[in-house]
Amino acid sequence: MADRPLSAGRTAAAILVLALVVGLAGDACHVAAGTTRYEWDGIPTLWKSAIWFPVALSGAVLAAAWLSERAGTQAVRVRSRADAVAGAAVVLALYAVTALLNDVPTTVSVVLVGSIAVAVWAWWDPSPGALAVAAGAAVLGPLAEIAVVAAGASSYGDPVDGLAGVAPWLPCLYFAAGAVAARLWSAIADPG
Amino acid sequence: MADRPLSAGRTAAAILVLALVVGLAGDACHVAAGTTRYEWDGIPTLWKSAIWFPVALSGAVLAAAWLSERAGTQAVRVRSRADAVAGAAVVLALYAVTALLNDVPTTVSVVLVGSIAVAVWAWWDPSPGALAVAAGAAVLGPLAEIAVVAAGASSYGDPVDGLAGVAPWLPCLYFAAGAVAARLWSAIADPG
Amino acid sequence: MADRPLSAGRTAAAILVLALVVGLAGDACHVAAGTTRYEWDGIPTLWKSAIWFPVALSGAVLAAAWLSERAGTQAVRVRSRADAVAGAAVVLALYAVTALLNDVPTTVSVVLVGSIAVAVWAWWDPSPGALAVAAGAAVLGPLAEIAVVAAGASSYGDPVDGLAGVAPWLPCLYFAAGAVAARLWSAIADPG
Repeated sequence: MADRPLSAGRTAAAILVLALVVGLAGDACHVAAGTTRYEWDGIPTLWKSAIWFPVALSGAVLAAAWLSERAGTQAVRVRSRADAVAGAAVVLALYAVTALLNDVPTTVSVVLVGSIAVAVWAWWDPSPGALAVAAGAAVLGPLAEIAVVAAGASSYGDPVDGLAGVAPWLPCLYFAAGAVAARLWSAIADPG
Repeated sequence: MADRPLSAGRTAAAILVLALVVGLAGDACHVAAGTTRYEWDGIPTLWKSAIWFPVALSGAVLAAAWLSERAGTQAVRVRSRADAVAGAAVVLALYAVTALLNDVPTTVSVVLVGSIAVAVWAWWDPSPGALAVAAGAAVLGPLAEIAVVAAGASSYGDPVDGLAGVAPWLPCLYFAAGAVAARLWSAIADPG
Repeated sequence: MADRPLSAGRTAAAILVLALVVGLAGDACHVAAGTTRYEWDGIPTLWKSAIWFPVALSGAVLAAAWLSERAGTQAVRVRSRADAVAGAAVVLALYAVTALLNDVPTTVSVVLVGSIAVAVWAWWDPSPGALAVAAGAAVLGPLAEIAVVAAGASSYGDPVDGLAGVAPWLPCLYFAAGAVAARLWSAIADPG
């Protein structure tokens, strides 16, 4: 984990790679467990994902990371590149956990994923700025997926589609991802 | 997360709110999963809990937090208000995890909840003082619940009532909650 | 948690005890859940393990800890004795989690255990040295278990024997254990 600052281009590339790994591996869990299904035939796939999913997710993570950096909100904790790896790994672990919750009562799945998401924010950077990004992700991410499901491109499995077609714990998963994304740029570009 | 000290009254109120949220959400998981049942009719409920449960639990957490502070044992780690949120969220996540363990062999559930509880203590404040509060909670909490079950007010589901009517992993869950409660007062009243 | 340095003999004894507790409790989870079975009769058992398993595992952990210390690679984070307890508890929790994954798709179990293993390394000591020990453990540990299974001394349950007779997530579990073992000697002998 070198400590020299990175250029903006290399920082963006590193964030895209990290988001791609987390998005592809997490989505592979959801598809393998039957949490989600892709409904359109003839779309190229990458691992278990239709190609548009990792592209859209990586772009959204990069946009969140870059906009958070530009907004200049103050971080409570300065994060290193190793922390960025830990943060991405924790979000991926939570992603995989959600693939285990298809037969679990909604109360349990939402409380479990929600409490871990709050812990991730409080550990990673308990700042108002990261909270705002996390909350924004918790609203915009599920809304985007609801639109995708409504368009018929993908669907959530029967027992976990109770939130307008998507999983009730989905806002919590986006909250955790948003909290980490909020400080990903500074953690990778110029770690303290 | 303001850094100014809080009055004793406001600190107590903050602890009660935190304990109420964790207790209600965790108990809702247990009721939803069939881990526990309330047996008396005609008692007012709050979310999924009979009203006496969150009242008793919040009072016990506040008492543990205040007595630990008064006892003046030395903390190894100074905790902030954000840490208090993280600690409460981790205890709630462990609470929700226990609601997933109804069909799991007792060996696995006890080792899982016990090892996470030890990790919570070693992360939050690995001091002899916090260990004493955690151990006390691990004894007194399950004893109180055993008395409640014996009185017929509530019961644990069939496969998880092997410890005198309560779940074998219950002492581990109280251990984790006690460890965090031990430094909750100082974390909220006058964070470092 | 006293801060005085320990002699090499006492450090080795402490590591053996820690590894024995984690190995016995974790293996008890695997046996209880049907993840693994011991196949030879007439071998003395300790808890649920044939006696050779905790002996071999403790010896391997001690060797990894001592060789990592002797190799003199540089740690990024100085770890305390309390951290050693936390690290051992986290590895044991992950060990217990693997006992819950017998009916889970391989993609989900490998991504879950793998992402937690990476997070353990990035939290405990995100150094190239600890990464090398973790990677070595992820190769040598499963190879040794594959040989044990091939010799007929033990076996993995039907749905989790897809990696030459052992579980596909086994390298990830050894990775996490190896990462922690890499700095166990210094954490216990002479904590910072």
